[in-house]
Amino acid sequence: MEGINKKIGGKNRKQTKADETAKGSKRTIAAKNTDRVKRMTRKVKAPAFKPTAPLKVIPLGGIGEIGKNVTAFEYGKDIVIVDCGFAFPSDGMYGIDYVIPDFTYLLENKDRVRGILITHGHEDHIGSLPYLLKDIKVPVFGGVLTAGLIQHKLDEHGIEGIHIQRVKDGDKFKLGCFEATFIEVNHSIADAYAIKLKTPVGNVIHTGDFKIDHSPIDGRKINLSAFAKAGEEGVLLLMSDSTNADRPGFTPSEQRVANSLDRCFAEATGRVIVSTFSSNVSRIQQVIDIAEKRGRKIYFAGRSMAKIVEIASELGYIRLRKGSQVDDKHLDYLEPDQVVIITTGSQGEPMSGLVRMSRDEHRYVSLRSGDMVVISASPIPGNEKAVTGVIDRLYRKGVRVVNHDTMEIHVSGHARQEEQKLIMALTKPKFFMPVHGEYHHLLKHAEMAREFGIPEEHILIGENGNVFELTQDEVRLASEVPAEPIFVDGSGIGDVGNVVLRDRQLLSNEGLFIVVAAMDETGTLLSGPDVISRGFVYVKESEDLMAQAREVAKAAIEKATAGSRYVEWSALKSAIRSAVKAFLYNQTKRNPIILPIIVEVDSGGKK
Amino acid sequence: MEGINKKIGGKNRKQTKADETAKGSKRTIAAKNTDRVKRMTRKVKAPAFKPTAPLKVIPLGGIGEIGKNVTAFEYGKDIVIVDCGFAFPSDGMYGIDYVIPDFTYLLENKDRVRGILITHGHEDHIGSLPYLLKDIKVPVFGGVLTAGLIQHKLDEHGIEGIHIQRVKDGDKFKLGCFEATFIEVNHSIADAYAIKLKTPVGNVIHTGDFKIDHSPIDGRKINLSAFAKAGEEGVLLLMSDSTNADRPGFTPSEQRVANSLDRCFAEATGRVIVSTFSSNVSRIQQVIDIAEKRGRKIYFAGRSMAKIVEIASELGYIRLRKGSQVDDKHLDYLEPDQVVIITTGSQGEPMSGLVRMSRDEHRYVSLRSGDMVVISASPIPGNEKAVTGVIDRLYRKGVRVVNHDTMEIHVSGHARQEEQKLIMALTKPKFFMPVHGEYHHLLKHAEMAREFGIPEEHILIGENGNVFELTQDEVRLASEVPAEPIFVDGSGIGDVGNVVLRDRQLLSNEGLFIVVAAMDETGTLLSGPDVISRGFVYVKESEDLMAQAREVAKAAIEKATAGSRYVEWSALKSAIRSAVKAFLYNQTKRNPIILPIIVEVDSGGKK
Repeated sequence: MEGINKKIGGKNRKQTKADETAKGSKRTIAAKNTDRVKRMTRKVKAPAFKPTAPLKVIPLGGIGEIGKNVTAFEYGKDIVIVDCGFAFPSDGMYGIDYVIPDFTYLLENKDRVRGILITHGHEDHIGSLPYLLKDIKVPVFGGVLTAGLIQHKLDEHGIEGIHIQRVKDGDKFKLGCFEATFIEVNHSIADAYAIKLKTPVGNVIHTGDFKIDHSPIDGRKINLSAFAKAGEEGVLLLMSDSTNADRPGFTPSEQRVANSLDRCFAEATGRVIVSTFSSNVSRIQQVIDIAEKRGRKIYFAGRSMAKIVEIASELGYIRLRKGSQVDDKHLDYLEPDQVVIITTGSQGEPMSGLVRMSRDEHRYVSLRSGDMVVISASPIPGNEKAVTGVIDRLYRKGVRVVNHDTMEIHVSGHARQEEQKLIMALTKPKFFMPVHGEYHHLLKHAEMAREFGIPEEHILIGENGNVFELTQDEVRLASEVPAEPIFVDGSGIGDVGNVVLRDRQLLSNEGLFIVVAAMDETGTLLSGPDVISRGFVYVKESEDLMAQAREVAKAAIEKATAGSRYVEWSALKSAIRSAVKAFLYNQTKRNPIILPIIVEVDSGGKK
Repeated sequence: MEGINKKIGGKNRKQTKADETAKGSKRTIAAKNTDRVKRMTRKVKAPAFKPTAPLKVIPLGGIGEIGKNVTAFEYGKDIVIVDCGFAFPSDGMYGIDYVIPDFTYLLENKDRVRGILITHGHEDHIGSLPYLLKDIKVPVFGGVLTAGLIQHKLDEHGIEGIHIQRVKDGDKFKLGCFEATFIEVNHSIADAYAIKLKTPVGNVIHTGDFKIDHSPIDGRKINLSAFAKAGEEGVLLLMSDSTNADRPGFTPSEQRVANSLDRCFAEATGRVIVSTFSSNVSRIQQVIDIAEKRGRKIYFAGRSMAKIVEIASELGYIRLRKGSQVDDKHLDYLEPDQVVIITTGSQGEPMSGLVRMSRDEHRYVSLRSGDMVVISASPIPGNEKAVTGVIDRLYRKGVRVVNHDTMEIHVSGHARQEEQKLIMALTKPKFFMPVHGEYHHLLKHAEMAREFGIPEEHILIGENGNVFELTQDEVRLASEVPAEPIFVDGSGIGDVGNVVLRDRQLLSNEGLFIVVAAMDETGTLLSGPDVISRGFVYVKESEDLMAQAREVAKAAIEKATAGSRYVEWSALKSAIRSAVKAFLYNQTKRNPIILPIIVEVDSGGKK
C-alpha cells in the first residue's frame, strides 16, 4: 500500500490540458508523477496485436471522494461519458448548493462526445447532467426509472431536445468506435446497471454502484452471468465501486429490512412514520406492502418524496393499491393505527419532512406520544450529530424511535469485500481501477485486487483529472485535465470561488464592521463617520462599544487627513481599518471584517 | 419510557427563578409539568424522620447534552456546586468559542455558595470555572492533577485569590450543612473522583465521569468498596454518567490499548506519530513506556500537549526518564526508527498538531512515506468527516495509518451498561437521576434503573434548569431557573445571541451587498450610489452584475425621492433594499443581506 501512495504523490494541483490526439501523449506531466509513470510504462509482455492508439480513461469526479461521479473514455475521435453526478457541499463550503465536476475538457472536445451512459438515478450519478447538457447536446442512456428521473431534472432546468434512451438488461448501443452493453445490478435504487464498454483496445467493465442481492424486493437480480461472460471474453479494465471496501463480508439483502419493518408495524399502536431516502424505491415499496397488509393508509410527506413516488408509480416501479394513499386533507380523519407516513429526513437535513416534524414545523403532521418513528437509513458520515439531534427531539415528545442501533432497519446499497472480490473473480480483469470512494477506500480495494493477483503495476489509483492511457499491455498516467470542484450557488456556476468562500467564512465567524463617512476631495469630513455592524455584537447592548469605535475611526481619519490638501483614499481606508481593528480586538478579542467606506462628495456641495 | 416523556413534556422555555427559601416551594410552575409534579408528589410511604426542608438538586448543564456539566445542591442557606464545565459549539453556532452555563441563579445566591467540587480535569467539567470564579470567590476541590489544570486555567484568565484544595481518595470536607467525600474512580484522565455528598435529607452519590478498570495503567482502581459502603449507609439519590448507556457490556481496560500500541511499535520501521487527547495522561504514559522500552525518543508536538505533559510530570502523573524527551532542535538529527511524536488532532481539529502535519503546515514535523500515524481515539460524533479527511491526506503521503477501525487502539473512558448497573447495585439508591448524556442516553439509563427495580416515580429525568426538591420519600419538580446556553466569543460573554448568530448564518450562506449613497436632507443625491459586496460573487468576474445593481439602486432612489421635499430615510432604505433584493435574486437566485447606507450631508456642503 505504501508503494502506491508514494509513487502517486499528493494531489496534483498542476493542471494541463489532455492531449487531444494520441501523438501528443508523450508530453511531460507533473514531475512528482514521474516515478509512477515509469513504473507503469514497464512492459509486461509483448502484445499480440496493437490498436493504433491507446484508450484514454479520464475520471473527472468520484476518485478520492464519494460524490460527483463522471468518467470519460476516449479513443481517437470518440468520447463517451459514464455518469454525470454532483456532490453535496462539505464543511467550509458556505452557502454552496452543489459541487459539480469541471467540464472544461469535455467542452473543449464537445464535437467528439457521442453520448452519456448513466448507471442509475442517484444524484451523485445524474445531478450534473443539466450543467453538461446545456452545452453538449448528446443522447443519454439509462434504465426506465433513471430516464424518468433525468427527464424530471431536465424539465426543472428547462433543458429541451435531449434524447433519453431507456435501456434494459443486455441492451447494446454503438457510440462511435465504442459499444456499450447494460448489465443489471442491485443497488439502493431500482434500475441500476453496470456498463460493459467494448473499445478498440479491449473491454472495460464499469460496475456503477452495486451490491449482490439474491433476494431483492423487486425480483431483479444482478446479472452475474453477464459479468462471467464478459470475463470469458476478456476484460481489459475493471472499474469497481469502492464505497464499502473497508467492510468485510457481504452486504445483507434488502429482504432483511422487510422482516424488521414488519416487526415495527406489529408493535406499533399509534401512527408509524418511516423516514428514508426518497430515491430508495425498494424501501418505499416494502413499507407500502406492509402498510397494505396491515390495513394502514399511506401518506407521502414532502415534495421530493411525493414527486419520486409519482414518477416511480407512473413507470411501474412502485405498486400502490387504489385507495391505499391518503392526502393531507383526509389524514387527520384516520385513527392513529390506520396511518403510515413516509417521509424524508433520515440524515437530519434541515428542510426535510422528519426534521420539520421534530421541530413542530410540519404543515400537516404533528407528532405526539404514541407515534413510532422508524429511521430507515444509517447516517452518512458527517450527519451523525444532526440525526442524534432529531432523535432527542422525538424522544422529548414521547415518540418511540427505531433506528439502525435498535434494529436491522437499513442495509447498504454497496458491495462489501466479498462481493467486490466476486466481481473481480468473474471478470478476471487485466487492469483494475477502484472508483467511487474516498482515498482510503480506494487503497483498501486496491489491496484486495493485489491479493486477488492483479499485479501492482496494473492497478490504477489516481486523482480526478488524471488521464490514463491504456494499451492492451500497459497503462501510463499521461497527463492531466482540469478537475477542481466547481461550486453551484443559486443560479451561479463557478462564480463563487475561494475568495468568496473565504469572505463567507470570515463573516460567519466574526461578522462585519462598517465605518462610513462622507468627505470632499480635500479630505474634509462632511458627514460621519458612522459605524454599522452585522453578526458582530448585539448592538443594542453594546452602545458604548459602538460609540467608542466611532471615536477611534474619527481620530484615525483626522490623523490621516491632517495637513494634506489631497487625500490618498486607499491609505486613508487602511488607516481606519487598522485603528478600528486594533481597538475592537483589544475590547472583544474578535476580528470582524472591517470595511471602511468613504463617499466622496463634491466640495461645492450640491451637484 | 413513554410515560416519562409524556409527563415531562418538551423543553421548558419558561424560566422562573427558583425559590430562595423552602417556604416558597409551593409556587406554581409551568403548566405542562403539572402532571409530572403530581405524580412525583405521590407519597410512597410515611417517613420516619423529616428534615425541615427539602434538598434542592439543580442541574444547570449536562442534562440532555454531553458538555458543560454543572449541578447545584441546595439546602437551607447552603449551596455546593459539583463540576463547572463548558461545551464546544455545535453546528450553527458560528464563530462561538465555547458554550457556558447560565450562572444567573448562582450569582443571585452567591453569598450562599460554599464551594465547588470538581470530579476531574476535563474541559466539560472545569472549563467554565473562570467565568464563575471571577464573580464568586469560593474554594475549589479536586484531585492533584485536576488542581494543577485548574490553576493553569485560572492563571491564563488572570484570576487570583482562589483556594484550590487538592484531594485524595476518602478525603472529607465540610461545606455548610453538606459534607463531601471524594471516591476514586477510573476515567480517561487520571485523578478522577465520584463525590458522596452527605446532606440533611440523605446521601447523594454523583459518579462524575467513570468507568470500572480492574487493570488501570496507573494502578489506581475505582474504589468499589466505598460505593458499597455508601450503599449500606443508605443512598438517597444516585446521579450517574450516562454517556455509554446505549452500549451493552463492559468498557475494556486501558491495558488492552497497551497491547495494540506495542504491536504498532513492533511493526513500525520509521517514525511513529501517536495522536490522542492531551488530557489522556494514561494513554500518554503508555506511549512513553513503550517508546522507552523500544529505544525511541519522545517529542511532544503542540502547545496544549506540551503544557499538559509539563503539568502532569511536575505533579508526578507522568513518569518520563531523563533523556527520553527530545526538542524541536534535535528532532531531525534522529533516525526515523528512534522517534515517537505524541500530538493532538485525533478529532481532526483544524489547528491541532496532526491536522497541521497532514497539511504540511507543521513547523517542525514533516510527514513522509514510511511514517506510521496511530490515531488513538475514536471520533466524537460530528467529527467523523474531519477525521476521514485527515486520514485520506495521510494516505496520500504514503503514511501508514492505524486507527480504531484497524486495531483496538482506543477504549472509552465511560462506563457501559453492566458497569452502570453495578454502581446501582452497590449503592442501592432510593432515587435515580441519569446525568451526562444526550436525551436518548438518559432515557436508556432510566430504563435500566427501572429494570433494576427503582420505581418510575423515583427516576428523575429533567432538563437543565429544573429545580428538583427531594425529601426522604418523594421528589417533585418544583420550579425552574435560567439555563439557556451562554455563548463565549473572544472576550465577550453572552453578547452574541440569536440575532447575531442569525446574521452570521445569513452572511455565511449568501454574503453581503451594500448600497451606499450621500444625500442632503432634501433627498438630493450628492454622491453614489455605489455598490460593495463581500462573500457574494467574485466581483472582478461580475462587473456587469455590479453595474446593473447600481443602476437598479439608483432608479429606486430616484423613484422614492421624486417630488418630495423631505425624505423618510427608512422608507427610502426599504425601497432600495427591495429593489436590489429582487434584482439580485432574479439574476443569481441568491439572497445576500442587503445593507443600504445613506450618508446625510448638509445641503450647504462643507460643515
